[in-house]
Amino acid sequence: MSQESFGNPDFQPPEVILEAVLYCDDLEAAGAFYEKVIGLTLSSCEPDRHRFYQMKYGMLLLFRASATRSQAIEVNGRLIPKHGTTGSGHLAFAVDIESQNAMRERLACAGIKLESEIKWPSGGESIYCRDPAGNSIEFATPELWY
Amino acid sequence: MSQESFGNPDFQPPEVILEAVLYCDDLEAAGAFYEKVIGLTLSSCEPDRHRFYQMKYGMLLLFRASATRSQAIEVNGRLIPKHGTTGSGHLAFAVDIESQNAMRERLACAGIKLESEIKWPSGGESIYCRDPAGNSIEFATPELWY
Repeated sequence: MSQESFGNPDFQPPEVILEAVLYCDDLEAAGAFYEKVIGLTLSSCEPDRHRFYQMKYGMLLLFRASATRSQAIEVNGRLIPKHGTTGSGHLAFAVDIESQNAMRERLACAGIKLESEIKWPSGGESIYCRDPAGNSIEFATPELWY
Repeated sequence: MSQESFGNPDFQPPEVILEAVLYCDDLEAAGAFYEKVIGLTLSSCEPDRHRFYQMKYGMLLLFRASATRSQAIEVNGRLIPKHGTTGSGHLAFAVDIESQNAMRERLACAGIKLESEIKWPSGGESIYCRDPAGNSIEFATPELWY
């Protein structure tokens, strides 16, 4: 099965992730973590459904899964598809080493323990903590991948 | 609680998401969707654990949750924290309107139905389908957010 099987041979695959998602049952607790500790700026909020954050490229969307799994929101006569997970998700932020050190200090001041820190064989360093919903949040220097 | 409560006042919040994550139990089926239909290029693969894709900014990581929830992988003497969700996650790719139309054709050729398509009041258009794991995948023109 080649890519050419599916329509236009000039097709260009998507290059950019516009929305990355985490699920947090307690959005107020999540907001305290992502805004006060991580330092993100809230772009949009529905207290019982979501908190959204604009990043340099795209958005970080926090949803309360019990809302997005059950409530069908209609926009211009069409429904936003339902979604929602349980369990610990994962997301990594890119940071340089100075910002990683500042984040380490910031997490310590907020009483949030590092769960692990890894020096990758390929280069790059990651530190890991949990958000209030139990998602595994990583702050990694991009040398990990590039 | 102000941001200044937590350490260095020169602190710069993270701007870039380095890793966005979806969970797919059947990674082979997921690979057929993300590679053959969506057109992403596989960067790294462990057939029973993950398939990774490099985007223009950051990575899309597909994990088999039953592996990442239970297997503690050690790197340089430290453990990668466990994670893994069940249920339908969500992710959006940014596309321009021409690429969205090409994707629409491509999904149709692959026999994948659109679940919804929305013209946002703020501008921007989204089409939605499901990946083989049931995640809600959106292809949105970035005017939705910018």
